Amino acid sequence: MKKTTQFKGLLKSENLKFIMEAHNGLSAKIVEEAGFEGIWGSGLCISAAMGVRDNNEASWTQVLDVLEFMSDATSIPIMLDGDTGYGNFNNMRRLVRKLEQRSIAAVCIEDKIFPKTNSFLEGNQPLAEIDEFCGKIRAGKDTQSDPDFCIVARIEAFITGWGLSETLKRAEAYEKAGADALLIHSKLSEPSEILAFMKEWQDRCPVVIVPTMYYNTPTEVFEKAGVSMIIWANHLLRSATKSMQATAAQICKDRSLMNVEKEIVPVKELFRIHDVDELKEAEKRYLPR
Amino acid sequence: MKKTTQFKGLLKSENLKFIMEAHNGLSAKIVEEAGFEGIWGSGLCISAAMGVRDNNEASWTQVLDVLEFMSDATSIPIMLDGDTGYGNFNNMRRLVRKLEQRSIAAVCIEDKIFPKTNSFLEGNQPLAEIDEFCGKIRAGKDTQSDPDFCIVARIEAFITGWGLSETLKRAEAYEKAGADALLIHSKLSEPSEILAFMKEWQDRCPVVIVPTMYYNTPTEVFEKAGVSMIIWANHLLRSATKSMQATAAQICKDRSLMNVEKEIVPVKELFRIHDVDELKEAEKRYLPR
Amino acid sequence: MKKTTQFKGLLKSENLKFIMEAHNGLSAKIVEEAGFEGIWGSGLCISAAMGVRDNNEASWTQVLDVLEFMSDATSIPIMLDGDTGYGNFNNMRRLVRKLEQRSIAAVCIEDKIFPKTNSFLEGNQPLAEIDEFCGKIRAGKDTQSDPDFCIVARIEAFITGWGLSETLKRAEAYEKAGADALLIHSKLSEPSEILAFMKEWQDRCPVVIVPTMYYNTPTEVFEKAGVSMIIWANHLLRSATKSMQATAAQICKDRSLMNVEKEIVPVKELFRIHDVDELKEAEKRYLPR
Amino acid sequence: MKKTTQFKGLLKSENLKFIMEAHNGLSAKIVEEAGFEGIWGSGLCISAAMGVRDNNEASWTQVLDVLEFMSDATSIPIMLDGDTGYGNFNNMRRLVRKLEQRSIAAVCIEDKIFPKTNSFLEGNQPLAEIDEFCGKIRAGKDTQSDPDFCIVARIEAFITGWGLSETLKRAEAYEKAGADALLIHSKLSEPSEILAFMKEWQDRCPVVIVPTMYYNTPTEVFEKAGVSMIIWANHLLRSATKSMQATAAQICKDRSLMNVEKEIVPVKELFRIHDVDELKEAEKRYLPR
Repeated sequence: MKKTTQFKGLLKSENLKFIMEAHNGLSAKIVEEAGFEGIWGSGLCISAAMGVRDNNEASWTQVLDVLEFMSDATSIPIMLDGDTGYGNFNNMRRLVRKLEQRSIAAVCIEDKIFPKTNSFLEGNQPLAEIDEFCGKIRAGKDTQSDPDFCIVARIEAFITGWGLSETLKRAEAYEKAGADALLIHSKLSEPSEILAFMKEWQDRCPVVIVPTMYYNTPTEVFEKAGVSMIIWANHLLRSATKSMQATAAQICKDRSLMNVEKEIVPVKELFRIHDVDELKEAEKRYLPR
Repeated sequence: MKKTTQFKGLLKSENLKFIMEAHNGLSAKIVEEAGFEGIWGSGLCISAAMGVRDNNEASWTQVLDVLEFMSDATSIPIMLDGDTGYGNFNNMRRLVRKLEQRSIAAVCIEDKIFPKTNSFLEGNQPLAEIDEFCGKIRAGKDTQSDPDFCIVARIEAFITGWGLSETLKRAEAYEKAGADALLIHSKLSEPSEILAFMKEWQDRCPVVIVPTMYYNTPTEVFEKAGVSMIIWANHLLRSATKSMQATAAQICKDRSLMNVEKEIVPVKELFRIHDVDELKEAEKRYLPR
Repeated sequence: MKKTTQFKGLLKSENLKFIMEAHNGLSAKIVEEAGFEGIWGSGLCISAAMGVRDNNEASWTQVLDVLEFMSDATSIPIMLDGDTGYGNFNNMRRLVRKLEQRSIAAVCIEDKIFPKTNSFLEGNQPLAEIDEFCGKIRAGKDTQSDPDFCIVARIEAFITGWGLSETLKRAEAYEKAGADALLIHSKLSEPSEILAFMKEWQDRCPVVIVPTMYYNTPTEVFEKAGVSMIIWANHLLRSATKSMQATAAQICKDRSLMNVEKEIVPVKELFRIHDVDELKEAEKRYLPR
Repeated sequence: MKKTTQFKGLLKSENLKFIMEAHNGLSAKIVEEAGFEGIWGSGLCISAAMGVRDNNEASWTQVLDVLEFMSDATSIPIMLDGDTGYGNFNNMRRLVRKLEQRSIAAVCIEDKIFPKTNSFLEGNQPLAEIDEFCGKIRAGKDTQSDPDFCIVARIEAFITGWGLSETLKRAEAYEKAGADALLIHSKLSEPSEILAFMKEWQDRCPVVIVPTMYYNTPTEVFEKAGVSMIIWANHLLRSATKSMQATAAQICKDRSLMNVEKEIVPVKELFRIHDVDELKEAEKRYLPR
């Protein structure tokens, strides 16, 4: 099944679905092997892995190059965290075309201003005008050649302190503009904003959430509230960071690998993940004896 | 101090020095924060992180793009694991120019044939002709504009079963061709090949080793033998892989972050690593009130 | 019609077909507007336009980036001049996958050694072993997902002085390995090598030629001999070079544009070629009033 | 002499200086060979050559990749037409760092909004706020590590109909913010706006102009008015377009090269431009006999 069709199926499913962050080809493969049905191409994590900040310091084509490796390495669908679409409606159109070429299944764009600022940082974060953002959604939808490609509209009204009525107003506008789903973002440590929205929204289209800050709330709460998809948004990179810091510190202190060797995967596990055996077989087929 | 000068200093030091693998800007930063004095831009790990195999599946400019992020993110010197130089002497010349532009301090090239095969994989791995490889070293040295840029010649004669006399023959030729140091590679689980070489080589130029397979040997053994630099070649990626696999499995099973949240770094640790505070300060200076 | 199907149709046509060199998106568009049915993504011209030599000084992904712009800008099929496939059979497999993602219709690979040397330069140019090259063709054919994607095998035996019998031997082997067509290359200033081959080959599969050196031979000669496709291989870049040299010299001498303005296209012709009107229309649709 | 120092010398010279557009490595080389002292990395022409519009359809790193080839191919300084700096002050800071790594001597930024629109197109083109644009200039100047790197502030007030007093107000603000020179842009077909500005400005800092539309005015007029630098902004690409269109049409009609061969440079001229002889010499030095 095409990746776009897989992803649309997740959004439309009766059951709550989960997608997991990845930031390069290896982590994408790990997400798939763990059993997830989809991948979140996190803007924060892709840029943090590169070594830059989540403020469009990397260009959109540098992000695209990472996504291409992720897509090539996996068979489950990827949704890109596409920030603001990297400019206006015309940049959004190019983005959609480039994503489709690389078999990316979906893109999520947020109603902020380019260059973006991470939602969990304090400070002034102006929202995009509703009409301008709707134009961006419509431009994207009109551009896609595969009818199953999905555009998810991320609403930052709670994040920026605008509250429920602004969130609902935007939700209606974005859904009407053609968004396949809404991502309602909140940085509270409890789920009140999300639940308030879900109650009012009445399932008019699928809703996606990102419980990075309200991780303590049991998943069943959102399941009952009618949420369609949960994004575990940055946990593989945060896990990798923790372990790399510990491993580097240990080796630096020990001047030796002895205390580390058993705590990490063997080299041959890297070979397995990237299927070195396939290449060995191919050499038999294609190289002269 | 320039990164090239830093790196040359490590090679020439009286004391054994250590450099640690990194594969992107984030891991490079972690290496520096852990206290290491240099970074190994591992070909295996950069390609594995991308999601491809260590057989020049990624192009040399794709590797270069990763290195640029690593170099920008850190202030300690980086030595690139430059495989075979990605072609002949002319490709090597371009590589050296591009590395210097990006403030990479050194490159290590190995005496195998493009496209390369990872040294720890079984099978036929023909060595480059000595004269051809010496020409590549000379071409690189003649190209560099910074006199402190280093070219390290990696000898794969032990790896491919040729033994000590071939290794010594190559060592002499490469040193004479201008190599700033030799990397003697071995895939035995004990240090006999390395020690045999060190005894014969008599410190005619710095020697670098990679104890991935003979990690059990105490570092003091190599210190006494006169080794100049040890590369911990792939342990951060192996550590990250282990933890990402565990984290992904846990979240997938739990359908929740609760068991994971305390085991990983907080989001704000990513912000700290990439110095979000600097940007906040800069906004005060450069944005209108 | 898919670009691959278009290109296969050209190769299989009863009539002699012509494709024209382009080296970037603009020249590709000019080729299409002139009425050609296909585009030759010339290795020589793409690298010369970049400012580097035709010796794989640009990486294969840098070439790919140029091709992507060319493909996006046009609706006729492109055949890439893929040099040696940029490595061994495995590099060829990756190349085919990447070309298909970018809607490139075909690739031509030549039986030389990486890194390649331009065929019109003097000096030692060893040929690839037949078995090795056949493995590369088979690997490419087995990799393509679109059955109409074409792989053209370019034979350099005439170029390197091996003569007709070696050329025929290779032609048979490559056709048997799955090549969709053969490109017979000659650097004589008359067509004797080509015609000798055509006589013996007896149309066992389509033959493509490149009359850069034997341009004086009337096209009808090749038409009668049964050639399927002619590549005008580098004439747009050579034309552009001539005119840019003249224009630069004139302006430099005159310190004025007056003598040049009428000899060049107006700025608005660039706007027309890239359809600025489409963007204006789109702005009306997608930007807020 | 460093390229930055060369460029600063041009700006500060007593004499009127000229720089010429290039859009890739080849055209850059042609500019240098024609005798110009500097190169204009035109945003319009780089994007048009790629096959996209002058509306930031190409990412800033794609533009950077072109510039790197241009810089490597030449020894005279390049000033990038850097649009709006590709975002806010922080994007500008990254841009400056990346340009310096690639030995680009200067960048010109304009006081419009990202994504930009070509100045010669009709329609609404809002100007940046003065304070915001001054912050961008200051951020760039504070970032550069080479004191001779130049930032030129391009004022679009005439273009957008704001007139002389707004232009002067912005000129003062940008010069005070640290701009090394001002580019005063006008799309009239005569020089009145430029001359009015020059009269009022009184040479407080160097002024650069772009006589694309008012090409009929004799250069001496601007020389007397005290202009420091003239940019011939897009004439090589417009020249190349004209000749490629003619050549493609001719060959398509003729089905032959005969009428074209004498009108274009020979293949060996491409070899000369990229110094194939240097490689031949190097092969003697570095390849085994």
